[in-house]
Amino acid sequence: MEFSAVSPPDAAMGAAARARQNRLTKPPGSLGRLEDLSVWVASCQGQCPPKQFDRVRIVVFAGDHGVTRARVSAYPAEVTAQMVANIDRGGAAINALAAIGGAGVRVVDMALNSDAGEFGTDLSPAISAHKVRRGSGDISHEDALTADEALAAVEAGRRIADDEVDAGADLLIPGDMGIGNTTVATALVASLTGAEPVEAVGYGTGIDDAGWARKTAAVRDALFRSRSQRSDPLGLLRCCGGADLAALAGFCAQAAVRRTPVLLDGLASTAAALVADRLAPGARAWWQVGHRSPEPAHALACAALGLEPILDLRMRLGEGSGAAMALPVLRAAVATLASMSTFTEAGVSGPSERQAGADE
Amino acid sequence: MEFSAVSPPDAAMGAAARARQNRLTKPPGSLGRLEDLSVWVASCQGQCPPKQFDRVRIVVFAGDHGVTRARVSAYPAEVTAQMVANIDRGGAAINALAAIGGAGVRVVDMALNSDAGEFGTDLSPAISAHKVRRGSGDISHEDALTADEALAAVEAGRRIADDEVDAGADLLIPGDMGIGNTTVATALVASLTGAEPVEAVGYGTGIDDAGWARKTAAVRDALFRSRSQRSDPLGLLRCCGGADLAALAGFCAQAAVRRTPVLLDGLASTAAALVADRLAPGARAWWQVGHRSPEPAHALACAALGLEPILDLRMRLGEGSGAAMALPVLRAAVATLASMSTFTEAGVSGPSERQAGADE
Repeated sequence: MEFSAVSPPDAAMGAAARARQNRLTKPPGSLGRLEDLSVWVASCQGQCPPKQFDRVRIVVFAGDHGVTRARVSAYPAEVTAQMVANIDRGGAAINALAAIGGAGVRVVDMALNSDAGEFGTDLSPAISAHKVRRGSGDISHEDALTADEALAAVEAGRRIADDEVDAGADLLIPGDMGIGNTTVATALVASLTGAEPVEAVGYGTGIDDAGWARKTAAVRDALFRSRSQRSDPLGLLRCCGGADLAALAGFCAQAAVRRTPVLLDGLASTAAALVADRLAPGARAWWQVGHRSPEPAHALACAALGLEPILDLRMRLGEGSGAAMALPVLRAAVATLASMSTFTEAGVSGPSERQAGADE
Repeated sequence: MEFSAVSPPDAAMGAAARARQNRLTKPPGSLGRLEDLSVWVASCQGQCPPKQFDRVRIVVFAGDHGVTRARVSAYPAEVTAQMVANIDRGGAAINALAAIGGAGVRVVDMALNSDAGEFGTDLSPAISAHKVRRGSGDISHEDALTADEALAAVEAGRRIADDEVDAGADLLIPGDMGIGNTTVATALVASLTGAEPVEAVGYGTGIDDAGWARKTAAVRDALFRSRSQRSDPLGLLRCCGGADLAALAGFCAQAAVRRTPVLLDGLASTAAALVADRLAPGARAWWQVGHRSPEPAHALACAALGLEPILDLRMRLGEGSGAAMALPVLRAAVATLASMSTFTEAGVSGPSERQAGADE
């Protein structure tokens, strides 16, 4: 499986955006992070001023994980399917936050341990169109996927990104839903960064200390089993990933191939992105991280990608919720370049000469 | 001048909101700061779930400051009036950010050193209806205002809050525009917190080290002149405040009297709020701080008020811009309580018994 080469965002347009920020009616740099984000959007879009996002799509990749049998999560595995139904019906946090940011939400069943019919007859029929298997394997003692399944899952993520971009999406947000997925994501991050399990494992949705010890043991076992796959992103997804993580990776990589900016969320999407940057080198230039996760592996993945989360509101929910919360910030960044007046247009004076001269 | 007593937000409704957050379909606490903010809004509104904000109003209080003659700012004083015109015409950062959050913007001339006619004939006629004087005095060696002017300015802020609430505002954001106003605001904060000038003075819109030294000297002189006014908020505003800061204080105090929540912004509005909490004890319960300012005096004021800023995007602009950027976060907090399903409604299981039992 090969991705087309990733071309970088348009650096000249980024420079034009930076220059325009310096002509807008405010002290240079005073919009802080918004200025950097506006430069990034302009370079991704290849136009300055950039246009406001028209069609933002959140795609939540859902899947069950065999490793939950090792009691690594505070919640029973059936919650994954129940929450998929809840998201599809519009009752989850991601639906509420998407509405504030003006984004659409779609949830896809990559590997639920049940069939759509079992968790509700009113759900979107296409929800399981890309399903790879029922539950990924328990990574503490078996491969998550076969080689064919890993390929199929990455390919599904790629196809979903293509479908969304073809339908006009100009910003993509990958979300996740899967009891146990922080365990799997932590194994991927630890494998790719060389971190020790005890440095990387966090408390997920709220396990206790005994649960943390079981989770750390599972990650350690998965790392040992997958030690030969560190430089093979597909092999790693097969060995200690899962169908949802593999699809997330394909989705993030293909978004970059298609020159479409991505707002990453918490641990699951950022871990998958770390794999995706191996599948499609340079893809990271098309991504920002919306929100800081308290999971240690998230910080490791962000550092490895050279990305600094935009927000820290102590959220730890997944679903794409932290990225959705950062969407208004990104919209605001675009709005400054698109609608503020320049000093010349507004007839506003620049810094005093005496002060300006003090730099000399 | 006396404000009516401030009644506290509805604690019972806050408790109901907290209980509802714990029944929503996500791990308890996983929405982080959004949960606390949703509880605050429910207690302010006295209803759970709270309703989404319908009419958010940003009022930018503008004024010139005589202390700019001591060269404490990187920008010439005429920028204040130019920027007032820019805000009124919709070209400033606050206009762009307000549009993202769905808020209206109004700018009022409390003490510009020019008359409205001088800076544009196309401006809103009411812009100077509350004007107290042309430029506040240079606090490094004279009072900012006379006693009558201080009263009139606080009263103007109070009346503007009343007008906005009477017109249906359900959330207020105080903004500021005034070259030199961080010098004055720093003097107010240092006076009320007992901080040394060198601990409290920052770099404003971007002065150099020599400018910082002049600014620190001006604050030290103002503190010495006003040393007898520390326990008299009106006296303090007269002695080392300004008409814009005094109006901001009246505005924040009266919002609390009228049981209307407020999102504070950077140093100017938070310094004024610190004074307002003396004018109307208990008012702080009706406020949140939208964004962390790099000005040291802002951190001192937030700590004194017991408020933790919601965002830190390295913005340092004023105008109300940081609070405007936090508005979507507050809207999201409301949306979680108002539109998410509970575990029971969605048929989603809670934490595993074994895990739940681990606490026992």
